[in-house]
Amino acid sequence: MPIFTRTNEPVPAIVLLTDFGFRDSYVGVMKGVISGICPTARVIDLSHNIIPHDVAEAAFVLSASREYFPRGSIFVCVVDPGVGTKRDILHMRSAGHVFLAPDNGLLSVISEQFGHDDLRAVTCEDYFLPERSNTFHGRDIFAPVAAHLAAGLEVEKLGEPVHHLAGLRLPRPLRSVDGSLHGEVIYVDRFGNLITNVRRSMLENSFSTSRSELLVQIKGERIQGLSTSYAQQAEGALLALVGSTGYMEVAVNCGSAAQTLDCGKGDSVTLGAAATMAASQMQ
Amino acid sequence: MPIFTRTNEPVPAIVLLTDFGFRDSYVGVMKGVISGICPTARVIDLSHNIIPHDVAEAAFVLSASREYFPRGSIFVCVVDPGVGTKRDILHMRSAGHVFLAPDNGLLSVISEQFGHDDLRAVTCEDYFLPERSNTFHGRDIFAPVAAHLAAGLEVEKLGEPVHHLAGLRLPRPLRSVDGSLHGEVIYVDRFGNLITNVRRSMLENSFSTSRSELLVQIKGERIQGLSTSYAQQAEGALLALVGSTGYMEVAVNCGSAAQTLDCGKGDSVTLGAAATMAASQMQ
Amino acid sequence: MPIFTRTNEPVPAIVLLTDFGFRDSYVGVMKGVISGICPTARVIDLSHNIIPHDVAEAAFVLSASREYFPRGSIFVCVVDPGVGTKRDILHMRSAGHVFLAPDNGLLSVISEQFGHDDLRAVTCEDYFLPERSNTFHGRDIFAPVAAHLAAGLEVEKLGEPVHHLAGLRLPRPLRSVDGSLHGEVIYVDRFGNLITNVRRSMLENSFSTSRSELLVQIKGERIQGLSTSYAQQAEGALLALVGSTGYMEVAVNCGSAAQTLDCGKGDSVTLGAAATMAASQMQ
Repeated sequence: MPIFTRTNEPVPAIVLLTDFGFRDSYVGVMKGVISGICPTARVIDLSHNIIPHDVAEAAFVLSASREYFPRGSIFVCVVDPGVGTKRDILHMRSAGHVFLAPDNGLLSVISEQFGHDDLRAVTCEDYFLPERSNTFHGRDIFAPVAAHLAAGLEVEKLGEPVHHLAGLRLPRPLRSVDGSLHGEVIYVDRFGNLITNVRRSMLENSFSTSRSELLVQIKGERIQGLSTSYAQQAEGALLALVGSTGYMEVAVNCGSAAQTLDCGKGDSVTLGAAATMAASQMQ
Repeated sequence: MPIFTRTNEPVPAIVLLTDFGFRDSYVGVMKGVISGICPTARVIDLSHNIIPHDVAEAAFVLSASREYFPRGSIFVCVVDPGVGTKRDILHMRSAGHVFLAPDNGLLSVISEQFGHDDLRAVTCEDYFLPERSNTFHGRDIFAPVAAHLAAGLEVEKLGEPVHHLAGLRLPRPLRSVDGSLHGEVIYVDRFGNLITNVRRSMLENSFSTSRSELLVQIKGERIQGLSTSYAQQAEGALLALVGSTGYMEVAVNCGSAAQTLDCGKGDSVTLGAAATMAASQMQ
Repeated sequence: MPIFTRTNEPVPAIVLLTDFGFRDSYVGVMKGVISGICPTARVIDLSHNIIPHDVAEAAFVLSASREYFPRGSIFVCVVDPGVGTKRDILHMRSAGHVFLAPDNGLLSVISEQFGHDDLRAVTCEDYFLPERSNTFHGRDIFAPVAAHLAAGLEVEKLGEPVHHLAGLRLPRPLRSVDGSLHGEVIYVDRFGNLITNVRRSMLENSFSTSRSELLVQIKGERIQGLSTSYAQQAEGALLALVGSTGYMEVAVNCGSAAQTLDCGKGDSVTLGAAATMAASQMQ
């Protein structure tokens, strides 16, 4: 079964992104399948703790992380509420990376941001496990296909090109007439940092004021100015900054903003120039 | 210390199954020991979140997962409430795989299902760490022995053959006079799917009716028919299907059956032909 | 970007110790960066579940684990409440291992116990990612520097030697006039075992009585004698022993001492010779 057509160059990394968690053996079994087909494959866990069935969260994590992986890395993205239905499984190349995912919107987010080529449906059963369930395609289809690709399989053998990607509606920040931006929290991390959908570029394009004059409102609290690091503020202080993913986040230095503000995914955040917002408040 | 006697073939995977969790450094330390003895060993985490000391759960996970790993894989199974007592540590081969585990019943489950050969006690201290605790044999015995095996150690050097395995009483489904099957939930996964001890083969052997005429009763709820995928039912709907491990499970599409039914390990489930159960209900 | 100057010897392991948890993609992204620079590096997770910002806990885990990793292993320790501030990032060699960590006290604990050589500040930006955030140096500095070291970079290129390490005040056991030792719980593991700061050597130096005559007091409970394994006591029984890390711990066989005693980090524990403590109690 193993195929070894590569020579002299390292086997590409297979990067796993799922909502399988670490309670069960689902991820381990996928790695077992991979190791049987391509024993030299390096497997990297990007995250397995996407909120179950939350394709939008997977899209955020993937789009914020992909650039840190070497060219040729194969991203296997199994957040798949439609497993066992007729939805396609897709292969897509984008900006030097390879993606395998169900056609449920995740890849459209990557394509919009980074373009794509070689979009095709994965249909050739020669590269699946011989017996397949309707409930665990991560094991039966995604893992073996990724391993065959890592081992050097020509992508043309997977299936025919397709020309359409299922879309995914992500919440986007809105601009109000007074110039303020209205976004929302899209991800809460381990530290309780509240990551919003407001990107660095939006801040730069929307506001001519300096960062120190921005006003961030969230859950009735006001934060004046953007910090440059967590530790710039006192321990326990609420702050806002552009985080490592390039999105604005609200944090508490050495604490949890999620707990302090009792705030989570979907809660709204407003940004404006301090002067304007004060004025609009008085009207 | 490293031994390299293998040539031209990949070093077998070492597959770890423990109840150590991810809070602590126990798993990491085992990998450190392995990497010192066999730096080229590939280590795969099958699961570390077996419920502490729950040998039966480990047996279920192992028996449902092992076939997805390549021949020669070395399974290191450390769910070991008797650590530090006189219980043997065993080496067993079964269906092309190698198992290292305490003699506490786990291997008897594998042996009953898949047979075994080369059952022996692991006693030769040359392949243990020089200093050993009574509380962490995963680090002091299992990890170094597995690494030496991966590096090519002849199994005969580990210790003498034995001819008896400690047993483990697992709950088995019972048949009642009206033909219905009475099983129980043996595992709850991350998604809240309730995996029962009723296997596909039992269903096929017990009922001549079609799958659509089966009736599943659990926690006072009745589910008519077996689905073929989660998404076959509406979001939020309760369903039953034969899951990816070959056991019948009760699930909620895009939800948690465990939460919806307030149901967990040990809760009972009944299956019968719809007509029969309705009748027996009326008597 | 990849550098391959090594020949014929295995690439050293890169061992990760962080407080990043497994909820997010932070650890995965670090591994992506490493794999782009040194594709053959073996990465081992020591722990990612250090309590956020708890440098003392990281120091305990590291000092208890390091000896189980082979010479040359590169420990990357990112528990870094001061990320983005002026604190140095240090390279230190100690007892055959390499450590990369912020200068926040963690390395002083290692140095006190095991000595050090080649202490230097990591300042040469050639080995950092080209764009750096102020909030995620694990990705932008630690991961690429570790990967370059694993790939064979001469350590002198990282930066200039320094001669001072930030200290860390760890709780130390105190001796009272009646000879008893007063320590505290410094770590609670997955099983609810309560690991104290009382080391085996302190027990041996402090008490001439046999282990069976020691009396351990914690949360109003008294434990007579030290066990040699968990299973030496009945299931559910409270016990004390010197654990696998060389520190005294309080445990419940097949149960959780943390739950049984409602006890956690910082709670105090007292050890004395049974006779003495009874006497002192009566005074």
